[in-house]
Amino acid sequence: MTDTTETLEHRLSRIHLALEKEQLERVDDVLSDLEPAEVALLLESLPPAARISLWERVPGEIDGEVLLHVHDEVRGTLIDDMDHAEIVAATTGLDTTDLAEIFEDLPQQVAADMLRSMDALQRSRLQETLSFEEDSAGRLMRTDTIAVRADVSLETVRRFLRWKEAVPDNTHMLMVVDRNGRFVGVLPLARLIANDPEMAVADLMDSDVDSIQVTMKSTDVATLFQTHDLTSAPVVDESGLLLGRIIIDDIVDVIRENSEQALMNMAGLDEEEDLFAPVMPSAKRRAVWLGINLLTAFLAAWVIGRFEAALDQIVALAVLMPIVASMGGIAGSQTLTLAIRGLALGQISRTNSHWLLRKEIGIAALNGVLWSLVVAVLAVLWFNSIAIGVIIAAALVINMLAAGVAGIVIPLMLKRAGIDPALSGSVILTTVTDVVGFMSFLGLATVFLL
Amino acid sequence: MTDTTETLEHRLSRIHLALEKEQLERVDDVLSDLEPAEVALLLESLPPAARISLWERVPGEIDGEVLLHVHDEVRGTLIDDMDHAEIVAATTGLDTTDLAEIFEDLPQQVAADMLRSMDALQRSRLQETLSFEEDSAGRLMRTDTIAVRADVSLETVRRFLRWKEAVPDNTHMLMVVDRNGRFVGVLPLARLIANDPEMAVADLMDSDVDSIQVTMKSTDVATLFQTHDLTSAPVVDESGLLLGRIIIDDIVDVIRENSEQALMNMAGLDEEEDLFAPVMPSAKRRAVWLGINLLTAFLAAWVIGRFEAALDQIVALAVLMPIVASMGGIAGSQTLTLAIRGLALGQISRTNSHWLLRKEIGIAALNGVLWSLVVAVLAVLWFNSIAIGVIIAAALVINMLAAGVAGIVIPLMLKRAGIDPALSGSVILTTVTDVVGFMSFLGLATVFLL
Repeated sequence: MTDTTETLEHRLSRIHLALEKEQLERVDDVLSDLEPAEVALLLESLPPAARISLWERVPGEIDGEVLLHVHDEVRGTLIDDMDHAEIVAATTGLDTTDLAEIFEDLPQQVAADMLRSMDALQRSRLQETLSFEEDSAGRLMRTDTIAVRADVSLETVRRFLRWKEAVPDNTHMLMVVDRNGRFVGVLPLARLIANDPEMAVADLMDSDVDSIQVTMKSTDVATLFQTHDLTSAPVVDESGLLLGRIIIDDIVDVIRENSEQALMNMAGLDEEEDLFAPVMPSAKRRAVWLGINLLTAFLAAWVIGRFEAALDQIVALAVLMPIVASMGGIAGSQTLTLAIRGLALGQISRTNSHWLLRKEIGIAALNGVLWSLVVAVLAVLWFNSIAIGVIIAAALVINMLAAGVAGIVIPLMLKRAGIDPALSGSVILTTVTDVVGFMSFLGLATVFLL
Repeated sequence: MTDTTETLEHRLSRIHLALEKEQLERVDDVLSDLEPAEVALLLESLPPAARISLWERVPGEIDGEVLLHVHDEVRGTLIDDMDHAEIVAATTGLDTTDLAEIFEDLPQQVAADMLRSMDALQRSRLQETLSFEEDSAGRLMRTDTIAVRADVSLETVRRFLRWKEAVPDNTHMLMVVDRNGRFVGVLPLARLIANDPEMAVADLMDSDVDSIQVTMKSTDVATLFQTHDLTSAPVVDESGLLLGRIIIDDIVDVIRENSEQALMNMAGLDEEEDLFAPVMPSAKRRAVWLGINLLTAFLAAWVIGRFEAALDQIVALAVLMPIVASMGGIAGSQTLTLAIRGLALGQISRTNSHWLLRKEIGIAALNGVLWSLVVAVLAVLWFNSIAIGVIIAAALVINMLAAGVAGIVIPLMLKRAGIDPALSGSVILTTVTDVVGFMSFLGLATVFLL
């Protein structure tokens, strides 16, 4: 029985120490207890040199599974360390679905050789899987389905299963098909056991089952699994022919990746980013995001520059102006995050977005008034000028209202344009709250104080 | 067969339209096709009045399941609309685990009455479940486990199952216990079917199985399910007594909630927040977050105020200073997000944090130098002063280095202090990048330009 109580963090410390002291038997000791997915997490947690040392100690028979479980970018670093023969050996044991997932990350020469070394059936299966779109049900589907005909008896099914011997342990239902291979229902193993052997499959099967079109998007498949509490589901083509099944293990990965994605994208990072990527490529990737944000910052600076006269005469404006921009940014990002989650769950549409907008404007108005009073009092006390207090209060209310509107409108517009709102939303929002913040505060000051 | 191709968004539009036009049969029409979890998503997507209209049309027999699936805050609004008898009726069909999840949200009077109306067994089960900590395995566990003894034959097990009749369709393994009820292994149904009826359970069972301590934290249970590709696992107490099982359906919810949480917390929002919460309570909750950020903003303003002399003489400083603060903020939030994901996955510990810090400093240095050159050139062209270009470049490099360090150190310190880094990390980070940004830019200007 594996020790389920040791945390990853503790294992990490143990293996790190063992690697540093080059106590290789200790490394092997930790490794021997671990599942491939755990080895994957460990590898991802190590800086490049230690990662490669550990990778070279990982038993060859789980190499393939480990490659499957790491993020794309980490997979690249591991494959770079393997020679041709190792890659072929690692991937040979994988089933078609898993192989397809990593196939495109393999060096071209290796991929070509692998295709050549496969038998015709394997090759055509792999090519069929690869022909489905990357994020579709076809790529998630397993083809190890056990299908039986509806018109046979339970006894026949039992004999068939006994003859087949290798029924996967995680099977809990059999697929039922008609004579043309079209899906007609499922037979839970529990019913197969608990009923009279003379009964026909057709009498016991459940035909009110959700079947999944092979072209369905994987995020939609994940939603279906969650809302219908499924643990596995049949996959069919447009004519209803049974092609395979999707199991919840693979759906869990889709769900996790999707939610990680929103978090990472909001900071302009890729969900597949390697925590320990080398400095140079990481810096390059982040440079793009910083560059885009620099444009925003210069736009804000340009707005400020329009009001040099005011800034020149009243230094308090320069001191207080970041408060207006910052409060707008914070309020806006709250609204934006709520909208991004709502959009991800499919809960925001044209029909309810007006209501949402009204609600967010209401919240912005209340908080705008509340905090602008606080800011006004502090500003008056600080700079001894009632006019400045009134102006910053007005600017703050304006900017928070703008933030509330932008927090809803921007993600909706991006979504409609087919752009990921999590990725671009925050930059555009900041642009709005900076520009509106500086413009309203400095603009009002120019009109009323100069 | 339900139509699995209609998106939530489309259903939402249909039901919204039907509610608006008061075409109640159409509403019932949409509802009749839906699973409780889908009804829950729909209810969450509706503003208060429409939500209540829809809730009143939801068939009573799925009320309990729907209540289970909505976010805590929405559950409150639905329960408020139900009378005593409706609540009791809705919750009667739920099993102990599900009931425990919503029990604490029920009005006190209802909860007391329900406890009184239960039989002794039900009541003690519920109280036992409630005695486990909120986010522990004990709360996730189902007690509908089917357990068999290791020393009986497969034939006996089959007869037992046939006699029991109601084996849940989603059962795919039986638990095996010794004569004292201690967990010894599992018997997959697939093996029960595919083997000779004369064999003993002990010969076929899998005893190398991960069992879960009832006190284990639910996030750790979720990690275990993911890394070990489990679909169900036995739950035991410290003496090894079998208490129940956890199934993957419930784990999927834990995984989804955890990842939603990081996203929402980074914006100072609660994961259970209702998209359509009324304005007043929403405004109140967000006010706290805005207030905390206002302190940050005033701290930054105070720092700027220290340099009034410089700002008074050189207006370009006021124009350019937000660029330094903003670039630091963006760079820092990238590092912070990466660290928060790493911490959530358990991939960052004391042993590798130094390496991570070095890497982030390296990235900050490269991007700092790159973008400070760009900014310097633009600043020189804009304000015709080489000195200002040099100073803003130096300040930018300093602030981006500070951002890289803060992006790693802050979440690690928060984690060690037991504070959620996603919730507090971004405020503290912004404080650092604002203060360091303004101080370095205006400070250098004061020293070299005045």
